[in-house]
Amino acid sequence: MTNDASAQDKALTEVAGRGESYVADLVDYVKIPSVSTEPEHASDIRVAARWTVERLKRAGVPDVRVLETAGHPVVVGRLHHDPSKPTVIIYGHYDVQPAEPLELWVSPPFSPEVRDGKVYGRGSCDDKAGVLTAIQAVQAFTATGQMPPVNVTFLIEGEEEIGSPNLAPVLREHAELLAADLAICADGGIFGVGIPSVTVGSRGLVGAELVVEGASTDLHSGVYGGAVANPIAALARIIASFHDDQGRVVVEGFEDGVPPLSEDVRRAVGEQPVDERAELGKLGLESWWGDPDYTAEERRSVRPTLEVNGIGGGYQGPGVKTVLPNRAMAKVTCRLVVGQDPEAVLGALRRHVEMNTPPGVKTTLTPLPGSGRAYQMPLDHPALGVASEAMEAVFGRRPFPVWTGGTVPVAEQFQSAMGIWCLYYAFSEPDNGPHAPNEFYRVSMLSQGTEATVRLLAGLAQRPEAFEPAG
Amino acid sequence: MTNDASAQDKALTEVAGRGESYVADLVDYVKIPSVSTEPEHASDIRVAARWTVERLKRAGVPDVRVLETAGHPVVVGRLHHDPSKPTVIIYGHYDVQPAEPLELWVSPPFSPEVRDGKVYGRGSCDDKAGVLTAIQAVQAFTATGQMPPVNVTFLIEGEEEIGSPNLAPVLREHAELLAADLAICADGGIFGVGIPSVTVGSRGLVGAELVVEGASTDLHSGVYGGAVANPIAALARIIASFHDDQGRVVVEGFEDGVPPLSEDVRRAVGEQPVDERAELGKLGLESWWGDPDYTAEERRSVRPTLEVNGIGGGYQGPGVKTVLPNRAMAKVTCRLVVGQDPEAVLGALRRHVEMNTPPGVKTTLTPLPGSGRAYQMPLDHPALGVASEAMEAVFGRRPFPVWTGGTVPVAEQFQSAMGIWCLYYAFSEPDNGPHAPNEFYRVSMLSQGTEATVRLLAGLAQRPEAFEPAG
Repeated sequence: MTNDASAQDKALTEVAGRGESYVADLVDYVKIPSVSTEPEHASDIRVAARWTVERLKRAGVPDVRVLETAGHPVVVGRLHHDPSKPTVIIYGHYDVQPAEPLELWVSPPFSPEVRDGKVYGRGSCDDKAGVLTAIQAVQAFTATGQMPPVNVTFLIEGEEEIGSPNLAPVLREHAELLAADLAICADGGIFGVGIPSVTVGSRGLVGAELVVEGASTDLHSGVYGGAVANPIAALARIIASFHDDQGRVVVEGFEDGVPPLSEDVRRAVGEQPVDERAELGKLGLESWWGDPDYTAEERRSVRPTLEVNGIGGGYQGPGVKTVLPNRAMAKVTCRLVVGQDPEAVLGALRRHVEMNTPPGVKTTLTPLPGSGRAYQMPLDHPALGVASEAMEAVFGRRPFPVWTGGTVPVAEQFQSAMGIWCLYYAFSEPDNGPHAPNEFYRVSMLSQGTEATVRLLAGLAQRPEAFEPAG
Repeated sequence: MTNDASAQDKALTEVAGRGESYVADLVDYVKIPSVSTEPEHASDIRVAARWTVERLKRAGVPDVRVLETAGHPVVVGRLHHDPSKPTVIIYGHYDVQPAEPLELWVSPPFSPEVRDGKVYGRGSCDDKAGVLTAIQAVQAFTATGQMPPVNVTFLIEGEEEIGSPNLAPVLREHAELLAADLAICADGGIFGVGIPSVTVGSRGLVGAELVVEGASTDLHSGVYGGAVANPIAALARIIASFHDDQGRVVVEGFEDGVPPLSEDVRRAVGEQPVDERAELGKLGLESWWGDPDYTAEERRSVRPTLEVNGIGGGYQGPGVKTVLPNRAMAKVTCRLVVGQDPEAVLGALRRHVEMNTPPGVKTTLTPLPGSGRAYQMPLDHPALGVASEAMEAVFGRRPFPVWTGGTVPVAEQFQSAMGIWCLYYAFSEPDNGPHAPNEFYRVSMLSQGTEATVRLLAGLAQRPEAFEPAG
């Protein structure tokens, strides 16, 4: 305990003196246009992977390798110094979103500029600062002649912005190399500017395209209207059958396996300092809408949803065209919570559509890519306590749990592929604008995040129960 | 009577010897690419109007003029020889549909070719043969030193294929010049190849674009799904509320003013020799669909309908995009029957949408252009009896009444603007392909139609009650 405390202090002193080099490193890293979705940046992806390798080595990580995948490579760095200590695997990604529209950037996206205490550039907050923060925290120990208080494996992928199609295969194929007791996701952020929070859950996803077909061709509505089933009208009836008139999903089997919301979760969701008026005003809305059995915040984060993302059929141009179309389609996606199986939800949806298809048309339901399960860390997980203490020491206020309503496959993949929990621990702030022009990361957060990560690693080493396998 | 019979006989003899000149005239007329919708054909429109003027003069019509409109001109020809006789006004149009796609034509659309007893070319059946048939019938009298048995006014417009926007104004502004006792519409056709019928009704039309709006921008479905009203789901609920689950329109006030279908109409509709199996097979359908209180043929022709012609909202591209769109729209058109007022139906639709708009979204209903009332000639109208006898004499079988489910404004415009009935009397056959490549008109029908029109004019002159004002 004393040893670890002293080790942490040395590391924190190191962090305090490194601010300038952290900025220089981030600027260097952001210069590489590692856009994963654009084939013309394939060589930049390689450059970024190589840069990551070198940076890990510079941090004193002895075993660094590049794992090839069916897509872009994964960089793995291992600093395993004591088999008696637990191992954390830290996840991040070196790929970035496209920078377009370029004309909206004040400084070029891949010529990073420091203005007003912020590093501007594509990938600065998402996720190059996240990767560097984790490396810097480990280096804070090694640079002061120490080993980090736990064994550390870095897993830095290059396909996060295209949906991480090869992450789960890598976890499976390199199970031994990557074996760990707890994962830390260094991609993500906190609730407000300077307001810390810890993400404890994310929703799963499953989607399908629903096509309704009637006659073999489009028909004249004056000649066949009233006598031939209209696929748009049929699709509307099917869509209308998904919810009751208050917004509850009424697809039978949709919620199979979903336990009631615990009081702890409801309280934690309710205590998030959301400014509902401001949020509604921003959206141009007067009130929230949906299942009255739950609050809007619950519906947005810890309850499953079924939404129609798109619909199309017949004539959509200007003016009038009196066609009775022979086809209409809708895209439907469901956000899932813990307990829901994507395949089972798809099956429920399929049965519901079959049962609610009006006569005269036929329906086809085709699964959409990108399905995944929800993730929920137990609110009393010891790692959350350690994370809270570490953040409180840095930010001066205790973080609270938050849920992302979106789908972030990585945590659930660690859970299902490796049987370990994943702690979200990352520091981008809501105004940083990932995926948007003029993305930035605060210079001060580079040091604060590193300090918080040093404290996390030190704190985790004190809590063996934080490394219990995931349930 | 004897006089008229002899006049008719002379005219019929004239018709019998004129087949070759009828073909030559149609070929000449079709050569003019009088496409009304394409500005580059504006001068061709003028050429066609001028050709029509000359053709009328050649038929012995003394008073021929070109009436300018806000669009293309209307050609009027008057042969009023006896104030004691009734006047018929014969409607047709000299404009044609575009010929595209050109590559599907066997011979060029505006270089008409006679093959297998058919004149191929754009506008041959729709409606240049119709116009010529009427002129030829009148000429059959004048060429044999007689006057036609009634006074005749020709009204040949150049905007039928773009919705006749200036026809009603012309009827109103030139009421005195165009005054008549009965209208004859020389645009349209018969039930089958060689199977005569008389169109006795057409449906009206009213339409609107329905827009549903939610938040001020598209949102992330993972962040706001379940808590912000989805305009697509709301639109689906509204559309689903238009009909009951058997297809009856359940918009309150929609059928206000619609009398029950008369037994005569139901019988006549039921007696049309429709091959339902063949028709369904052609459409790739196993059965008709819709309001079970009426037959499919009734729903297609003499019952009002409400159809969605198009729908759109959110993401319609390939794959998945988890957007919660802020807007969705649908285009709705209603076919109307006699008794329905387009404005009143629009009002009923508006009230229904307002009452069925779910919370959290707002709806806007914008009328679409092209509204009009239905037209229905009394089944016992004397002109129908005359038309039946005339057709039976030519085709060897008695025609039956048919209804077009579509909307043909001209008959209703004669009725409302001039207070006269309009008899549909035209001879294109269902295989002629108006609006399609390789449109044609049968050479034999040029003479048959002319003979039938000679018989009609002679027959009408015997039946003063055919010229009673429209109710």
